[in-house]
Parts: sequence; structure tokens; C-alpha cells
Amino acid sequence: MFWLLFGIFLLACFAAGATGGLFPPGPWYRNLNKPSWTPPDWVFPVTWTTLYLCMSAAGARVALSPDNAVAMALWSLQIALNGLWTPVFFGLKRIKLGMFVLVALWLSVAATLLALMQVDLIAGLLFVPYLIWVSIAGALNASVWRLNKEEANSPRPAST
Amino acid sequence: MFWLLFGIFLLACFAAGATGGLFPPGPWYRNLNKPSWTPPDWVFPVTWTTLYLCMSAAGARVALSPDNAVAMALWSLQIALNGLWTPVFFGLKRIKLGMFVLVALWLSVAATLLALMQVDLIAGLLFVPYLIWVSIAGALNASVWRLNKEEANSPRPAST
Repeated sequence: MFWLLFGIFLLACFAAGATGGLFPPGPWYRNLNKPSWTPPDWVFPVTWTTLYLCMSAAGARVALSPDNAVAMALWSLQIALNGLWTPVFFGLKRIKLGMFVLVALWLSVAATLLALMQVDLIAGLLFVPYLIWVSIAGALNASVWRLNKEEANSPRPAST
Repeated sequence: MFWLLFGIFLLACFAAGATGGLFPPGPWYRNLNKPSWTPPDWVFPVTWTTLYLCMSAAGARVALSPDNAVAMALWSLQIALNGLWTPVFFGLKRIKLGMFVLVALWLSVAATLLALMQVDLIAGLLFVPYLIWVSIAGALNASVWRLNKEEANSPRPAST
């Protein structure tokens, strides 16, 4: 039963993560000013794959535990927000709105971590790398905003 | 406790549904050939808001029930897929890939409905309108594909 649940949660992660492949960093992103500590492009899919495995294991452990209501609801919330950032940032090229999504994601991941931990300590710990990574992603998005004020403030063309 | 859970699930729904506001139907969609029974644009947000309320109530009921593991994992999967269709169809303008996402969404919604029903009959019934609506959306996407073969087959320009 653990592996069935792990598989379902992993599918949810890859559904959210599919946006990374569909909206890849293109010339627009390459031309932005970025901080010196920006990780190279290949780091992102590798990190996310690792995080997805941890997140799915945490989800499966807590799904099988009693009194999992808040943790399960929050797990759903964080995965819905997880899939939102890439279309906003790389799809719409909206740096400020991306920052807003990342703050919401960070809050949901932190809340999920706390809720998981109350049900199962290991599940909570499995979310720690995720929270660290979203913190780094948030710092990166904030730096990109600071270093590209004009681009961040320019209204994006309407969808055609 | 029900209302806290309802609120968290509703936030997850609106995170997925935010893509509808971010990638609105533009000139590209208006110029596509559509079947005569295509609902007017305003029907979509109204229907989705109603469905989100039902989905959140179903999620909250089952989160509070024992033996909810599979149902909770599937609830997460369907919400992750729910937020994927709009960026693919309206954002990337990829009609065939949109159809693929809708089939995956339909399967996940059907599986969630069955899993919810085994835990709580009312929760399962609350997912029935959702499955019907995703069936209609799938028929619409399929019709748009059939009526716009050339557009569906044309490679989309790479992201800039």
C-alpha cells in the first residue's frame, strides 16, 4: 500500500513538475541579470526530482497514519502552488507575480512541514530539503527582480 | 475542523484555477473553429467556482474520515493535473497536448470519485458534477482538435 500511495503522490509531483519541461528557461531568462550564485540550469531538474521523491514518501507515510487531515489538505495545497510558479515566471515572464507565488508556496510548504511533523517525524524531515530549496528559489526570484527592475515593472504584452 | 480543511482545499483549488485568470482565452482561441455547442466564455469561471466548492467539501469530509489514504493521494493528483491544462492549452496553444492532459485529468477525477465513494458516499457524489464537466471539456478539446487540424499539427514557436 505504501508504494501505491508513493506512486500516486509522485504522479502528482510530476504533473506539477511537467510545467518545468513545458515552459523551459529561454532567451528571455538567459538575458536577465542574475546574481553570481545562480545555479546552472541542469541543477533545477535534478534537485526537483530528488525533492519529489522525498515529498512523495512523506505524503505516503502520512496518508497511512491516523489524524492526517490537516497534513493531507496542506499537501494538496503545496502541490497546486508548486505547479503555478513556472507558468507565471517562464510562461508569462512576470517576475513580481512569480515572487508572490513563491511566497505563497513557501508558506504552504512550511505549514505542510509542521503538519506532517505532528503526524510523523520522518515525514516532516522529508520536507526540510524542499523548504530549503524553495527558500533558495525565493531568494533567486527576489534577486532577479532587484537586478531587473525595468523588466519586472514593464507590463507584459497580452496573450495572443 | 471541517471548515479549516474546507478552506485549505479551496485554496488549493484556487491555486489551480488561478491559471484560468493568468492564461485567459485570447484572440487565438476566438479565431479557432469551435463546435456549435461551445459554452460562452463566462460559463467556465462560474462552473469552476461551483465545482471547486464541491471538491473542497468532498476533500474535507474524507480528510476527517479513517482509511482515507488512497482518496487523499488521488485528490492531490487531480488538483495537480487540474492546474496543468490551462497553461498547456491557452498558454502554449498546444491543442493535442491539452487533450492528453485532459485525458489524464479525467482518469484521475474518475479514480478520485471511486476512492472518495468508498470512504464517504456524499464525498463521492460531490465529485460527480466535476467528472461530468471534465467530460464536456474533453469533448470540447477533441472537437477543437478535429475542427482545427492544421493549427493542432503546426509546431508552436519556441518560448522567447
